[in-house]
Amino acid sequence: MSEKIYIGVDLGGTAIKVGICNEEGQLLHTYEGPTEVAKGPETIVDNIERYVRLIVEQSPFEWEQVAGVGAGVAGFTNVREGIILLAPNVGLKDFPIRKILEDRLGKPIKIDNDANVAALGEAWSGAGKGIDNCVCFTLGTGVGGGIIIDGKIYQGFSGLAGELGHISVVPDLEAIQCGCGKIGCLETVSSATGIIRMANDAVSRGERTSLSLVENITAKDVFDSAKAGDEVATRIVNRAAFYLGKALAAVAVVLNPELYIVGGGVSKAGDFLFNEIRSVFAKLTPEPVQQGLKIVPAILGNDAGMVGAAGLFLRS
Amino acid sequence: MSEKIYIGVDLGGTAIKVGICNEEGQLLHTYEGPTEVAKGPETIVDNIERYVRLIVEQSPFEWEQVAGVGAGVAGFTNVREGIILLAPNVGLKDFPIRKILEDRLGKPIKIDNDANVAALGEAWSGAGKGIDNCVCFTLGTGVGGGIIIDGKIYQGFSGLAGELGHISVVPDLEAIQCGCGKIGCLETVSSATGIIRMANDAVSRGERTSLSLVENITAKDVFDSAKAGDEVATRIVNRAAFYLGKALAAVAVVLNPELYIVGGGVSKAGDFLFNEIRSVFAKLTPEPVQQGLKIVPAILGNDAGMVGAAGLFLRS
Repeated sequence: MSEKIYIGVDLGGTAIKVGICNEEGQLLHTYEGPTEVAKGPETIVDNIERYVRLIVEQSPFEWEQVAGVGAGVAGFTNVREGIILLAPNVGLKDFPIRKILEDRLGKPIKIDNDANVAALGEAWSGAGKGIDNCVCFTLGTGVGGGIIIDGKIYQGFSGLAGELGHISVVPDLEAIQCGCGKIGCLETVSSATGIIRMANDAVSRGERTSLSLVENITAKDVFDSAKAGDEVATRIVNRAAFYLGKALAAVAVVLNPELYIVGGGVSKAGDFLFNEIRSVFAKLTPEPVQQGLKIVPAILGNDAGMVGAAGLFLRS
Repeated sequence: MSEKIYIGVDLGGTAIKVGICNEEGQLLHTYEGPTEVAKGPETIVDNIERYVRLIVEQSPFEWEQVAGVGAGVAGFTNVREGIILLAPNVGLKDFPIRKILEDRLGKPIKIDNDANVAALGEAWSGAGKGIDNCVCFTLGTGVGGGIIIDGKIYQGFSGLAGELGHISVVPDLEAIQCGCGKIGCLETVSSATGIIRMANDAVSRGERTSLSLVENITAKDVFDSAKAGDEVATRIVNRAAFYLGKALAAVAVVLNPELYIVGGGVSKAGDFLFNEIRSVFAKLTPEPVQQGLKIVPAILGNDAGMVGAAGLFLRS
């Protein structure tokens, strides 16, 4: 038996993505198939097993070289026990996935939530390669987060560290309720959902904006309008960026990280978004804490989940 | 040679406090003498050496039992190199205190800043005894912080982790500049200085408050007036507590700690302050993150610095 390989599984509501990584975090092969949530847990597990075995068969590697299988799950997980506590999009609750997959695959299994796993992927072999202390924000439907300390995911007391989308940054008087039940969370303004909500609100109010001509506004529509000079869209983007910059500033004096990695669909807005974030961050963060700290875009895109899941074996 | 002992030095602008701790973090003997800042660095070092030798002589322990001498310094420190970068109150700058004390005492020396050391003291044998992950806020002239992960001080990338007084929590429109040069820092509203400033401002504006009869208002005056029902004083205390609660909420979703310890002079206001902090915290923090998390007062008072400094040898 030669080189060891690690398999990363990104378990989402629509697709299961499976990747093979080597010990350096290089993603060598990938496979993607449907999750088939509607068919229930048994089918989901069948699919995971099938895709994992398939990708190894189709690769130049032997099954014996698989040193472990990691899985990132969109939902709440109990990392220590290997249980999916609640994954609404995947239709799983109190599901002992580690035990089940260990029995089926005969390999060591590790799990974590998708945001932590994506953060680990970026830290291991993405934008954070070579840096041991970084913090990731993933701006998607929600705002996810992951904290990497000494190259590993930091879990906190009950596995809830890095829930960065729920930093309360919006002042009470302009705060709205978040999906978590609290008010003023970063996620309510800096996620795609938040941006779309602010755009729809503006259109409903009859504000003058090119967005009023768009059906089913997306976050990309808002960014495109803003880039084209639309004032309302610009205000919305700046608001999303402002609170993100404010959250980055708060986390900076807590953790003093070397690097911020910002990923997810919304981050594709590029410099237009990043310049505003950096400007707010610079205004609110003490100079010594800014020294040497960089804010960069994620580079692995949708692969981060697979890479990070594989990395659970070398980095946790 | 029997039991090992550790000496903790709390180096402040007025006094040098020296304490002997055993391996369980019990403070067995203490000695306090003047710092004599005006006489310059040589005298300060002479005093440290003298007080350290004196306390051991006066104790039942032998010099050989001293396993290390730790020092907490009010200022910026380079922990790795053992250098005091800047301690304005002690009049020291770029001062290689570790090397100097090692030569004089012939013992291993460790240093850290006062907030970190106080946090470690409370975590080791104070309010956080037996708990490995806690976060301390010290509400004094400024707002200091310290993060304890796995029983040890978390330093971050450049030793600036836990600068919790500089979390930007006050919205821009009501923010003022902090000593750090930035705006909206927690320290501008929740420190004794912040509370006194808000009280003086209210009096200057001619607001109706019993504080207008007080000369040289202290934070205690403001709390006493608030407890007696003064509306202006109550508003000021609530504002200080609100932003502290908001900062605690922000840190909770980042670090997911098991315990918050709140100490320093301002914390002596007791339940009057803590109830408000807990109420704001509960309003802004997702339920799962609140589960099992406690917010408690510090219990070591001014001894925390000595205990934590001694603890640098067992807990860093």
